Amino acid sequence: MTTNFPDIVLIGAGNLATQLGIALQKKGFNLIQVYSRTHESASALGHQLNTAYTHMISEIRPDASVYIFAIKDDALPGLLKEMPPLRGLCAHTAGSIPMDVLAGYAPRRGVLYPLQTFSKNKNVDFDHIPIFIEANNEGDENLLYQLAETLSDQVSVLSSEKRKYLHLAAVFACNFSNHMYALASDILKEQQLDWKFLLPLIFETAAKIETMNPDQAQTGPAVRYDQNVIDNHLKLLAGDADKQELYRLISHSIHKKCTFED
Amino acid sequence: MTTNFPDIVLIGAGNLATQLGIALQKKGFNLIQVYSRTHESASALGHQLNTAYTHMISEIRPDASVYIFAIKDDALPGLLKEMPPLRGLCAHTAGSIPMDVLAGYAPRRGVLYPLQTFSKNKNVDFDHIPIFIEANNEGDENLLYQLAETLSDQVSVLSSEKRKYLHLAAVFACNFSNHMYALASDILKEQQLDWKFLLPLIFETAAKIETMNPDQAQTGPAVRYDQNVIDNHLKLLAGDADKQELYRLISHSIHKKCTFED
Repeated sequence: MTTNFPDIVLIGAGNLATQLGIALQKKGFNLIQVYSRTHESASALGHQLNTAYTHMISEIRPDASVYIFAIKDDALPGLLKEMPPLRGLCAHTAGSIPMDVLAGYAPRRGVLYPLQTFSKNKNVDFDHIPIFIEANNEGDENLLYQLAETLSDQVSVLSSEKRKYLHLAAVFACNFSNHMYALASDILKEQQLDWKFLLPLIFETAAKIETMNPDQAQTGPAVRYDQNVIDNHLKLLAGDADKQELYRLISHSIHKKCTFED
Repeated sequence: MTTNFPDIVLIGAGNLATQLGIALQKKGFNLIQVYSRTHESASALGHQLNTAYTHMISEIRPDASVYIFAIKDDALPGLLKEMPPLRGLCAHTAGSIPMDVLAGYAPRRGVLYPLQTFSKNKNVDFDHIPIFIEANNEGDENLLYQLAETLSDQVSVLSSEKRKYLHLAAVFACNFSNHMYALASDILKEQQLDWKFLLPLIFETAAKIETMNPDQAQTGPAVRYDQNVIDNHLKLLAGDADKQELYRLISHSIHKKCTFED
């Protein structure tokens, strides 16, 4: 594999594209071009990765072995319509989008979905990120598998049908838990308390489920539905109907789950 | 301070009592007795900490300098009613309970609230846990401050009134985010996928807010209210009305927050 790395064109210059570009280059892949919708974003990532870049769809290199589409889910169909026919393997990176969104545009198509949250300015180590791949033929499945395996030690083949659930679970585990941090930090800010007091608690909450599953790790007043504490919390939230309703609903959901599994 | 450590009786043998007992001993405090409601739990922690223990309220040592009550919030009032009058400083550890629950029982009273989630079998490092203290007189405030400062480098004096909000925020940041992990892992388990695929994502979600605040860290379909993805997710949850309602409510809450702060 190391002697025969495929040439790659990276489509996108956002959080995932940036981190993926860095990781691919670190592992020795030949990133021959970066495309992004605007000159600014294309040149920024092109310079960062020290590789060619363009914001003109017509200038996308037609001769790459692999095209990785790392753009926003809702931007993918629009871009595909404008792309010239590509002979290389086209792989998108979106958890929620079936592989066959590429049908009609790419005879060789696949998916490379890293289950992680990415920021432009916070480098992540790909080594242990679960990557889920899929392709419409065995040769390309092997090609994507090898590519993914060079990035990470956790590669699985997974259908579009199953991947949808993975993406849904990621929304709960990442986006929704981050929103809980955001609501918690609002509560402290409103009391002129430093939200960073919460950091050790948040880190330990995450760390706990390395040694026990989330059901075993569940604590708090909702577990036994401690009416007294819950009523007092609802009173503290009286000025904020949205937070109050969330508090009520999540507490019920916790209690239901704990009662079931006792 | 190191020459004059107060004698401490620890009331409770649960997660917090266990971790607090370990930490106090590690820092050189003289833990003269452990009390817990049952012989089993009292002796288990007594043996673990190699100290005297009892499950008889009448046998609680009357001569300690400090009594730390680390028991369930709803068990505290009942226990207090049965306790003999204590001359030492009585401090409870509950975020949601005002200091004055101790009035009428303890002339010298206070609170020592560590903002953290504790498990019996997972030792935590107290060194950087924020500890919030309160006392009903200046001498005891100093005593508790020194005690807490020996355990952690993050000690603050905080009123009962403010502490309530801290506890409420902790419910969101810890209990509710853990519930998001639990729902996510259910979704994977139902698809016969290993829930541990989520661990790197969960760790990174928590780690992110060390370098940016939770509002900056927020990602996912709800940020721009991507109707297409959200509708698809709601369809996947069609068999589970509770999860569906939570998904809808949290997505609206995220979107509202992001729109406000854009």
